[in-house]
Amino acid sequence: MATLGDIGLSAAFNIGSAFAFLIAFAILRLQPFNDRVYFPKWYLKGLRPTHGGAFVKKFVNLDLRAYLKFLQWMPDALKMPEPELIDHAGLDSAVYLRIYLMGLKIFVPIAFLAWTILVPVNWTNGTLAAAAKIANITASDIDKLSISNIPLGSQRFWAHIVMAYGFTFWTCYVLQKEYEKVANMRFHFLQAERRRPDQFTVLVRNVPPDPDESVGELVEHFFLVNHPDHYLTNQVVYNANKLASLVKKKKKLQNWRDYYQLKFSRKRTDRPLMKTGFLGLWGTKVDAIDHYTSEIEKVSREIVEEREKVANDPKSIMPASFVSFKTRWAAAVCAQTQQSRNPTLWLTDWAPEPRDVYWPNLAIPYVSLTVRRLIIGVAFFFLTFFFMIPITLVQSLASIEGIEKVVPFLKPVIEVKFIKAFIAGVLPGLALKLFLVFLPTILMIMSKFEGFISLSSLERRGAARYYLFNLVNTFLCSVIVGSALTQLKSFIHQSPNQIPRTIGVAIPQRATFFITYIMVDGWAGVAMEILRIKPLIIFHLKNFFLVKTEKDREEAMDPGSIGFNTGEPQIQLYFLLGLVYAAVTPVLLPFILVFFALAYVVFRHQVINVYNQEYESGAAFWPDVHGRIITALVISQLLLMGLLATKEAAQSTPFLIALPVLTLYFHQYCKGRYEPAFIRYPLEEAMMKDTLERAREPNLNLKSYLQSAYLHPVFKAEDDDESMEMDETEKWENESVLVPTKRSSRLNTPLASKMGSSPPSQYENDRASNL
Amino acid sequence: MATLGDIGLSAAFNIGSAFAFLIAFAILRLQPFNDRVYFPKWYLKGLRPTHGGAFVKKFVNLDLRAYLKFLQWMPDALKMPEPELIDHAGLDSAVYLRIYLMGLKIFVPIAFLAWTILVPVNWTNGTLAAAAKIANITASDIDKLSISNIPLGSQRFWAHIVMAYGFTFWTCYVLQKEYEKVANMRFHFLQAERRRPDQFTVLVRNVPPDPDESVGELVEHFFLVNHPDHYLTNQVVYNANKLASLVKKKKKLQNWRDYYQLKFSRKRTDRPLMKTGFLGLWGTKVDAIDHYTSEIEKVSREIVEEREKVANDPKSIMPASFVSFKTRWAAAVCAQTQQSRNPTLWLTDWAPEPRDVYWPNLAIPYVSLTVRRLIIGVAFFFLTFFFMIPITLVQSLASIEGIEKVVPFLKPVIEVKFIKAFIAGVLPGLALKLFLVFLPTILMIMSKFEGFISLSSLERRGAARYYLFNLVNTFLCSVIVGSALTQLKSFIHQSPNQIPRTIGVAIPQRATFFITYIMVDGWAGVAMEILRIKPLIIFHLKNFFLVKTEKDREEAMDPGSIGFNTGEPQIQLYFLLGLVYAAVTPVLLPFILVFFALAYVVFRHQVINVYNQEYESGAAFWPDVHGRIITALVISQLLLMGLLATKEAAQSTPFLIALPVLTLYFHQYCKGRYEPAFIRYPLEEAMMKDTLERAREPNLNLKSYLQSAYLHPVFKAEDDDESMEMDETEKWENESVLVPTKRSSRLNTPLASKMGSSPPSQYENDRASNL
Repeated sequence: MATLGDIGLSAAFNIGSAFAFLIAFAILRLQPFNDRVYFPKWYLKGLRPTHGGAFVKKFVNLDLRAYLKFLQWMPDALKMPEPELIDHAGLDSAVYLRIYLMGLKIFVPIAFLAWTILVPVNWTNGTLAAAAKIANITASDIDKLSISNIPLGSQRFWAHIVMAYGFTFWTCYVLQKEYEKVANMRFHFLQAERRRPDQFTVLVRNVPPDPDESVGELVEHFFLVNHPDHYLTNQVVYNANKLASLVKKKKKLQNWRDYYQLKFSRKRTDRPLMKTGFLGLWGTKVDAIDHYTSEIEKVSREIVEEREKVANDPKSIMPASFVSFKTRWAAAVCAQTQQSRNPTLWLTDWAPEPRDVYWPNLAIPYVSLTVRRLIIGVAFFFLTFFFMIPITLVQSLASIEGIEKVVPFLKPVIEVKFIKAFIAGVLPGLALKLFLVFLPTILMIMSKFEGFISLSSLERRGAARYYLFNLVNTFLCSVIVGSALTQLKSFIHQSPNQIPRTIGVAIPQRATFFITYIMVDGWAGVAMEILRIKPLIIFHLKNFFLVKTEKDREEAMDPGSIGFNTGEPQIQLYFLLGLVYAAVTPVLLPFILVFFALAYVVFRHQVINVYNQEYESGAAFWPDVHGRIITALVISQLLLMGLLATKEAAQSTPFLIALPVLTLYFHQYCKGRYEPAFIRYPLEEAMMKDTLERAREPNLNLKSYLQSAYLHPVFKAEDDDESMEMDETEKWENESVLVPTKRSSRLNTPLASKMGSSPPSQYENDRASNL
Repeated sequence: MATLGDIGLSAAFNIGSAFAFLIAFAILRLQPFNDRVYFPKWYLKGLRPTHGGAFVKKFVNLDLRAYLKFLQWMPDALKMPEPELIDHAGLDSAVYLRIYLMGLKIFVPIAFLAWTILVPVNWTNGTLAAAAKIANITASDIDKLSISNIPLGSQRFWAHIVMAYGFTFWTCYVLQKEYEKVANMRFHFLQAERRRPDQFTVLVRNVPPDPDESVGELVEHFFLVNHPDHYLTNQVVYNANKLASLVKKKKKLQNWRDYYQLKFSRKRTDRPLMKTGFLGLWGTKVDAIDHYTSEIEKVSREIVEEREKVANDPKSIMPASFVSFKTRWAAAVCAQTQQSRNPTLWLTDWAPEPRDVYWPNLAIPYVSLTVRRLIIGVAFFFLTFFFMIPITLVQSLASIEGIEKVVPFLKPVIEVKFIKAFIAGVLPGLALKLFLVFLPTILMIMSKFEGFISLSSLERRGAARYYLFNLVNTFLCSVIVGSALTQLKSFIHQSPNQIPRTIGVAIPQRATFFITYIMVDGWAGVAMEILRIKPLIIFHLKNFFLVKTEKDREEAMDPGSIGFNTGEPQIQLYFLLGLVYAAVTPVLLPFILVFFALAYVVFRHQVINVYNQEYESGAAFWPDVHGRIITALVISQLLLMGLLATKEAAQSTPFLIALPVLTLYFHQYCKGRYEPAFIRYPLEEAMMKDTLERAREPNLNLKSYLQSAYLHPVFKAEDDDESMEMDETEKWENESVLVPTKRSSRLNTPLASKMGSSPPSQYENDRASNL
């Protein structure tokens, strides 16, 4: 077990690297040539055009005063008030940040209580010191602060039980307040929202085949009969996956042609050549520009053909349609009721926001969905329980003994104190982290295969899976070292009340491991996130090799998004660790507090300045977040019960039984009280918005507004592909000429957003003047 | 363990008593003075008025030919075709009978397969015979036919595994076919149904308080705003529980007065006297008729006061209302959507049929419902696990050793072979049965306390609880003798895969007990059901002491009802036994087949001739029935796995793991495919009925039809209490004079039903001519 010294070294190392990342960020972000890496959100909003001024100033910031205030971005990130943040980055982002804030709200009082009450209670025992004398081992100081230091059967365990009640009630109180707050935020958001196509639209799937009518006609007739006063229009779904892939291919080819043209324009002497074989490694040599031009022409022809086919072939029309109604009321009614006698036909559900639709999955026949779900369920089970084998292998190798065993000649190097501490403190966490990097992609592919039709639901499902995976493989397998598979086996053969004991006993022993993990993943990892190393490198590579016009530069910019499917499960792991260790090893809590605080600031900065919002689900993920914290709470209670049961505190343990029951009852209450706000749309609300709109715009032509709202993007993109391209660029350039950048000119000129959103606020002006 | 001889004796005894009941029934039912006990359904329909003819013939059937065909009622009961049965007794009854039929459909092929394949496989082993030689015990013949006779680790277990697959597939096939059939029946029933108030009406609960408006006004305004084109009228709910109890009290007093008046009219010499104290045991002596007359007057005055109060005091108006709409479509929409932003206010749900409403519970404030549910949940847990203690006590007493221990002087009597067999064969089952008699009442009271607002949901919940109770206390505790509590303890300390083993091993040993149980409860019990001993005695007592007029006689008649809350769990126990023992001890199957066949005939007869339908839920209970059979199937699979695991058939057991997974997947499929038909009302259907109705009756005044449909029955009853009483009696007497009874006259005169239902059918005419 690692001593306090090891932890200190590891902490120093991780704090050092976190600071290094932050300083690097502070310097890099001030350089104008990095502007598109660190402030893409403002570019997307049209508020940060290119710089004017001297040539050098275009790339390097020479204003030394700016460097002195290198941590200025932190208060800046915190300054924007929440309502404005919602306007700026959407409700999803604002509520996502509240999860970190909730972490602080929960754990600051818990940490305070634990340190003032539990730490003294633990510390003033001599159990471990006595045991150490007998067995001649030195107990680490961390263990002295933990529950391990209390003798068997001591009356002091009452303190832990009372604290466990206190922690549970406080957590539930915060959870309930937050649920209420988020539900209200969602209602206000939906109420204040402008007219959006998805408010009027329902996606109907599994339209039964009809020999006489096309899908569009059939849908029209069905809804004219069953919603006669409300039906407006419908937009059938095409299977345009092949077309979309062709368009993508064309774009790729155009990219290559541009690259070779650029190469040629730089070095006029010889035309670039290339090989046609695999990866350009073999095959006949041809003129690259000619080759790609002809390829592009070929694909363009194919695209035209495929478009014809999709538009005219009834086989490419899916038995699904976006049905729009005259009022929000009617859409709410249709989305929440059963249409047909056969409950597997004419399935209606809310249409996702147009930009939220995941088009490829609309082409999946509905009947195959249950089978797909079963397949993915089994696959996920195997992934969870077999993915572990390599991790455990690496973890056992990454220990000092493991390394000495495998490569004995390195022994002298390893025995150096500093390296030893590094291996013990950093490596195991790092190995786990590296393994987990590839996981979200796999889980996302699984969700896509399962057939969800909106990006938001894909991400939510991805998050749920990732959380389960983390729980089994990161948490459980780190607590009881051993693969998930062997644990599964032993759990089947153990009695149900033995399992919490087995895990509970191991909990205090693994505190140092998790402290290291928090520092590596939570501190240094979050600090690295703000540096955006991968987008930074890629942007500069692209900028150097490919970018010719402003539009190219804009495309080279990769703002990324919050990544709910990876971010949220990560936070949940910290909630779990915090709740589990709160009553057992309170030393861990400050480390978690630092994580939540740092992550809140960093992600708030990223949300304001970097991430691009891909969709807006109106915080639909909150019930999941709430449910997982409840899960963590119940797990922590069960493990504490298990731990106390082994401590011969028999007379006090039964008092903990009420805790999980009360927690689950609280969950039921919250589910009934708040969850409907996230999954249903009350008719009262719909009617109010309809009435208001009718009063405000009595002559609104809703049909033309909704007509092509749910057209497959590949049709839209193609339509304005050539014609709009020039316009857009021109418009963009005009704008960037007309409106001087706020940053380089330091003028507080208010200017209208390109996307037509709110005018720049007080906050933005503050920001500008601060820089 | 009981030998084949014991079983034979027990069988003889039970068959004998069953036959005795059937013969008694055959004789009693032919006596005209029992007519109202055995054919009340026809009286309720107005198709069987009193008899004319000679005085003796009025009471005793002297036609000897009738006695010869004493089993004629059986084919009679089977003759009525199902559509006519639905017309006659409602869909609920018809579908309820299908459960017995489904038992036959499932178990006839299973029994056939088990006897042709498993019985020979089991029989041709010598394990038990060999063991018997060594241990000097005689193995019973039943065990020789069971899986116990197969040696450890034998390859013959493959036969059982293949059979388990076969049984599962066959059961699932039948279940799916039945689910589909019942769902279709429900649809046709709902489609063909006449106009009913509940089709247009929604019950809204938790109306928020408003200082300015009454509940009725508030509801009207809310629905006029949110369903402007559809709202028709609403009927607030009064807390009339006190009024109802006063009316009930008055009725009771009137009954007593009538009794004393009758006594006086028979014996003119002295006016009857009574004591006013408790139960008439002490207190001052008063003139009984005067006393009751004055009491009645007092209560009548109280009733008038209370009615005034209920009608005018806003406190007696509950925050709930029956809201009626202009169309079925609008009612379906309102019932299936969320109305208000706060999901705990303005809760809408389908209104139950008026006669299905359980009025007292409408007065329960909605907020207390969750607390009530929690209380009942805990109470049911304790009932299930502590009710067992007395049963086990009695069961251990009822064994031969137990009796000899407690009353040693009876030893010589008990040792008589016949009595010994009787005790071993009959007593344990009987003790269990007696205990279970009082249970349904307790469970029903629990459901009522929980606050369900319709009789159908009360019965469904009662059935679910009774089933769980049966599963734990009848099945599990009979398998592993010992109280549920000790089992609960041992299960918590056992590993999850040990539990099926513990139970599985005990299964074959308990076969004889269950065979006895089936004969007592299933054969003799069902045969006793048809005799209706309790209603028979009570009717004749009432008839002798109280009945003066035809109306009194009608009131003395107690048709009863199917009693879904007790009947269905009983059937489920047989499904469970059949499925569990199918692969283990196939000897049990024929006993179950006899039960299903006998019960089908008996209950079909009762449904046709006796039971009065209290409500019509449109077979809403079928998903429960289906789900419980699936549960039984999974339990049987797990127990077989546990049993085989102890038989050292290690290489074959894993092949059973797929079975529960497949079964649960099948359940999911059925749930998605058919369950919505039982809980939702498709808009297509509603719209079709609305359109048809509008075409047929364009000038229908729906408002007057719905206005008072959901008036509390106490108001209705009072309205026509005095005025209607005479009319009704007159009408009745006129009818009975005008229309000669079919039975006594043996004329096939078709006559219109009093209740306005369909004219007598071919079947009824057949019946009449057969008698």
